[in-house]
Amino acid sequence: MDRRKIAPIGVFDSGVGGLTVAREIIRQLPNENIIYFGDTARVPYGSKSQDSIIRFSEQIIRFLQTKQVKAIVIACNTASALALDTVQKEFDIPILGVVVPGARAAVEATVNGKVGVAGTDATVRSQMYTKIIQKMNPEITVIEKACPLFVPLVEEGFKEHQVTREIIDYYLKSLKDTEIDTMILGCTHYPLLRSKIRTYMGEKIQIVNPAYETAMDLRDLLEMQGMANDGSAANGVCEFYVSDAAEKFNEFANSVMPFDIMSTRVIQIENY
Amino acid sequence: MDRRKIAPIGVFDSGVGGLTVAREIIRQLPNENIIYFGDTARVPYGSKSQDSIIRFSEQIIRFLQTKQVKAIVIACNTASALALDTVQKEFDIPILGVVVPGARAAVEATVNGKVGVAGTDATVRSQMYTKIIQKMNPEITVIEKACPLFVPLVEEGFKEHQVTREIIDYYLKSLKDTEIDTMILGCTHYPLLRSKIRTYMGEKIQIVNPAYETAMDLRDLLEMQGMANDGSAANGVCEFYVSDAAEKFNEFANSVMPFDIMSTRVIQIENY
Repeated sequence: MDRRKIAPIGVFDSGVGGLTVAREIIRQLPNENIIYFGDTARVPYGSKSQDSIIRFSEQIIRFLQTKQVKAIVIACNTASALALDTVQKEFDIPILGVVVPGARAAVEATVNGKVGVAGTDATVRSQMYTKIIQKMNPEITVIEKACPLFVPLVEEGFKEHQVTREIIDYYLKSLKDTEIDTMILGCTHYPLLRSKIRTYMGEKIQIVNPAYETAMDLRDLLEMQGMANDGSAANGVCEFYVSDAAEKFNEFANSVMPFDIMSTRVIQIENY
Repeated sequence: MDRRKIAPIGVFDSGVGGLTVAREIIRQLPNENIIYFGDTARVPYGSKSQDSIIRFSEQIIRFLQTKQVKAIVIACNTASALALDTVQKEFDIPILGVVVPGARAAVEATVNGKVGVAGTDATVRSQMYTKIIQKMNPEITVIEKACPLFVPLVEEGFKEHQVTREIIDYYLKSLKDTEIDTMILGCTHYPLLRSKIRTYMGEKIQIVNPAYETAMDLRDLLEMQGMANDGSAANGVCEFYVSDAAEKFNEFANSVMPFDIMSTRVIQIENY
């Protein structure tokens, strides 16, 4: 038994949003074991500084290493945009973010070379999507738009409320009024508003959810390095950890995930 | 020179909301020196657990003690409701919260014995306003209502936006439809929505902002213990500390405070 093959994948996010990425990894790589960590004591990340997001990410990676993970997915656009470069240099373990896969999907999808990005304040301020897309294809125009109220709207269960439509209009009008043909949901919470955003933006715009491409990148990485779990033993197990309020996390997670989550454990992440 | 008299008052909050309390202390006690701490790395508190809020409060009080404060004001309803009892027992320094002063003001204000409280999820779940008000007067009926989107609306500058009116209606309709004659703004962010809430609730309802009574309680405490700064030396100085993103804090603070704040410093609160 190759211990590397059965080792779990570490997946982390500022809170519950990254479950949309975990869900996609489970769908595409059902044999892999997953350790998920949600930093619910310090959520949200989108309004915080790069220094703090790097420090939070370092602590989480050290925690995930105590679980002998074989690779780590930063399932948070803000941490991917602001901390990935730093932690890739610091840690001797493969670490993937969601920004590069999302950017590549948009580059492949756009026909007219005009791409929109909706993200948190911190992600948009970093201009990381623009930098990465234009490295892949300098001809592409990228318009980024911060939508800071989307996360609290999702977390407070306002998905179906009338004001959500108005706040979508408030933030996305300037993107809708451009000629973009492709739009990246650049925050892991936003796929939970996908149908409302789809209705608002219209059928002509392609909506990119980086979760799908991230799971594909992870599969390629595991196969290239001979680390994929072949399903012969100890597979498909998910463990969930948070830094606060496990019960509230379970409740939300059970509305997103394809199975029930009961035994989320709380750890003190600042000790790592 | 009595060193206790010139020692500063420590004031803390999860972020910028507590500045509405600091502003009131400055107005009523202009001679006092103030050390303000905003926990911007972990804001908001209102959606987090009691365990975390107690741990955060302990760390902040240990930090404030390094500044030789003579008394501490917890300028955050959530921390006052969930952590005050614990930290008062643990620390050998006078600590005031905002819930008791706010409750007392409402008890004095109500004529028909029906009081409403708007607060964060955590504050309302604790039912601390109800417990304290009914200890003061068991005849009073208290109706508490959690309004979790008010904090992000204020922080994202939506005070004047149309959706704010609708979200106020969504949360406060059930309070408006009762016979309350008094309403407590049970979160330090909410005074920043005061005029909108006032318009919505109507002129007949008395709105209580606990900041005013808290500053009065602080004055009484300092006078009783002979610790009030008489203004003869080293007075009226405010220092600001945050756990993240000092610049963003300054920007917000300058719209709330009666003077410009330039030199906010960032500290790593989890090390305390």
